[in-house]
Amino acid sequence: MGMGDGAGLTAAMLPGGFAWGAVRAGIKASGNLDLAVAVTTGASCAVGTAMFTTNRVVAAPVTVGRRHLLATGGRVGAVLVNAGNANCATGQVGADGCMATCVAAAEAFGCIFDEVFPSSTGIIGVPFPVEKVVGAVPALKAVAGSAPEHAEMFARAIMTTDTLVKMASAVVAVAGESPTEVSEVRIWGAAKGAGMIHPRLGAPVGASAGGGSAQPHATMLVYLFTDVAAEAGQLSDALAAAVEPSFNSISIDGDTSTNDTVLLLASGASGVRLTRELVPAFDAALGGVCRSLARQIVDDGEGVGHVVTLDVRGAATAAEAKLVAEAIAHSPLCKTAWSSGDPNWGRLLAAAGYSGAAFEPERVRIWIGAEPVFEYGVRAAGFDEAAAHAAMTQREYTITIDLGAGEGACRFLTCDLTAEYVRINADYST
Amino acid sequence: MGMGDGAGLTAAMLPGGFAWGAVRAGIKASGNLDLAVAVTTGASCAVGTAMFTTNRVVAAPVTVGRRHLLATGGRVGAVLVNAGNANCATGQVGADGCMATCVAAAEAFGCIFDEVFPSSTGIIGVPFPVEKVVGAVPALKAVAGSAPEHAEMFARAIMTTDTLVKMASAVVAVAGESPTEVSEVRIWGAAKGAGMIHPRLGAPVGASAGGGSAQPHATMLVYLFTDVAAEAGQLSDALAAAVEPSFNSISIDGDTSTNDTVLLLASGASGVRLTRELVPAFDAALGGVCRSLARQIVDDGEGVGHVVTLDVRGAATAAEAKLVAEAIAHSPLCKTAWSSGDPNWGRLLAAAGYSGAAFEPERVRIWIGAEPVFEYGVRAAGFDEAAAHAAMTQREYTITIDLGAGEGACRFLTCDLTAEYVRINADYST
Repeated sequence: MGMGDGAGLTAAMLPGGFAWGAVRAGIKASGNLDLAVAVTTGASCAVGTAMFTTNRVVAAPVTVGRRHLLATGGRVGAVLVNAGNANCATGQVGADGCMATCVAAAEAFGCIFDEVFPSSTGIIGVPFPVEKVVGAVPALKAVAGSAPEHAEMFARAIMTTDTLVKMASAVVAVAGESPTEVSEVRIWGAAKGAGMIHPRLGAPVGASAGGGSAQPHATMLVYLFTDVAAEAGQLSDALAAAVEPSFNSISIDGDTSTNDTVLLLASGASGVRLTRELVPAFDAALGGVCRSLARQIVDDGEGVGHVVTLDVRGAATAAEAKLVAEAIAHSPLCKTAWSSGDPNWGRLLAAAGYSGAAFEPERVRIWIGAEPVFEYGVRAAGFDEAAAHAAMTQREYTITIDLGAGEGACRFLTCDLTAEYVRINADYST
Repeated sequence: MGMGDGAGLTAAMLPGGFAWGAVRAGIKASGNLDLAVAVTTGASCAVGTAMFTTNRVVAAPVTVGRRHLLATGGRVGAVLVNAGNANCATGQVGADGCMATCVAAAEAFGCIFDEVFPSSTGIIGVPFPVEKVVGAVPALKAVAGSAPEHAEMFARAIMTTDTLVKMASAVVAVAGESPTEVSEVRIWGAAKGAGMIHPRLGAPVGASAGGGSAQPHATMLVYLFTDVAAEAGQLSDALAAAVEPSFNSISIDGDTSTNDTVLLLASGASGVRLTRELVPAFDAALGGVCRSLARQIVDDGEGVGHVVTLDVRGAATAAEAKLVAEAIAHSPLCKTAWSSGDPNWGRLLAAAGYSGAAFEPERVRIWIGAEPVFEYGVRAAGFDEAAAHAAMTQREYTITIDLGAGEGACRFLTCDLTAEYVRINADYST
């Protein structure tokens, strides 16, 4: 399994059966690439499943994408993504505009209307520039291809405040009937997101029944492509398992967006079926790709100076461990202390205390990096402020919290809160 | 009813039966006043009730203060408050230290050990300087008095990162048996708090049964003094009613402290009993004092540039209205937008959407000041960006959100998030 983060994308990393492309539709004020497409190149559509934000307010493409996956049972011929406008809180006009772009993509790429999966990211509440998108679709067809530069073009076009292109890949070697016969299944993914990042994705949509509750979404977009041959239900299981410890376990600012979408498409072009024997290796590979993309998102978070892993153990349940991690990850006092390397463990303890998780402070232990800072109700006997501060000067480090209340655990990835984050998000020019 | 916020405190505003004082015990690095006392001057103790943080981690004085109120049924002879050290996460040594200071105060002020109510505020996890506090208690006795300068000294000594002294007062005129016979009940309160402010205070302690669940606290301290004659149960009812719309409806940074305490003491010195007839006027006066102090806390919040009232209406329940207010009040994206006067209502809508409250975006309306910004699923027809921005350049303004889902409502006071807040809380020097 090889991981290709960002640069160095090669043809060997890309799954067969897909083409990608992007153009400048004039939505981003910067004039950069802002309209991307991914299409299947084989005779039939890809099989797809998606997970959407649980925000009660959702953008038009989330509503439409969910409806399309349910209507087709997870059949996707084209993915159309624009950046620069979220098409959220845009009413019926926004919904109509989204559908018009699906019609245009269906015509251009030879599939039917509800085989198009739309996504948007950008500012909320500004009228959706439907003419720009529809007008640019034909040009998308002209530039689409299956080479690394096409895939990277896709990954670049979906960026908003991201400063880095976010990609990851994995290859699963599959033994054939004879020892010399080895096939490969490939997975490649692209993601965007740097702010309004606290994904809380709901159940997969695209499988048979079950998924698709009327809940809302945010502004992390993730597209995962594989050439395995699988059914939608299998993909939903794999995606749900991969998303919980990756995208559902990160936060930059705690703001769950209205557009968050993770889409997994399988082209079947490898000819390898996702058999029961292959599931563990496929799941591991997909999990690795998702964790890599999730890490890249936090690492490129707005104004981020430090990436902090919260390793919460000893909670009564895994859900309570996550409550503690989220309280700390969203505490301005914890996050500002990280920005200066201040080993202020009292703030960590206080946030754990109001998280809602059950524990006795007298049984809690906390480490910053390898440095013990709190043990059983008091400052650790071996507390070395300078050493703890030194650990926090690293770009990345881990804070470990053992609540001493059970076996529940959670690993959660987050970041510091800096004056630069405030500057980026306070920036306002009429 | 007269309100005396901050400056201009006069003897006529102060309730009878109390004396206040403060000294420099050397706890604050600044060398400022850091140890305060309030004592009863009559033959008997005051009757008291308190509400404490619901944080699971609590400082030693919270545990001790709760125990003392329960042991005495709400009898308080002296209140001893230090600033500069929270005496939290200090283990048995911290608890012993807190009790030693109660013993010293009891000796100095002629009451018994558990009639002393202790409080601490400051940094968490640093050993409590018990010798400094115990050593300074005799000096407290020498400076205590009942004049305005004594009360103000008390209010000043409890400050930490506060830049302003926070005081409020009210007078309730009480008609006697003849038309010319008018008595007065007076209420005066002092508060501190500027960061780690999102009080979530539990049920009152000091009444008969019921209160005192084993939950934790934070770093807002509030002391309310009145000369009405009342029982602890009456005071608990009055305090609970006053706290919910004031201290329990504010947030600066969402961090619920381990030391939050609101104490109400009644000396009885006015000779006026809190009869059923007097309750409405007394409750109104106490509510006014609490709202004034709560507003002063947010107004003096760390790095605050704008004080924002969130007026949430039309929720399914009052609790859901509060969920929406708290989500917005804790959203870094909403709070940074306020710092620059950016009328980015999409962030407000997104935060409402992930708050957990039930509503349909198509029924929601939002105003910034008097400017409509969002109506029934889309940007308001009358949206005037410049006018909305202008409303946000005021130091204080209101954001109104009507969810269109019921009759539940909540008024919540919060503030923007500025680079200065980050600077204050990231400041770290070994």
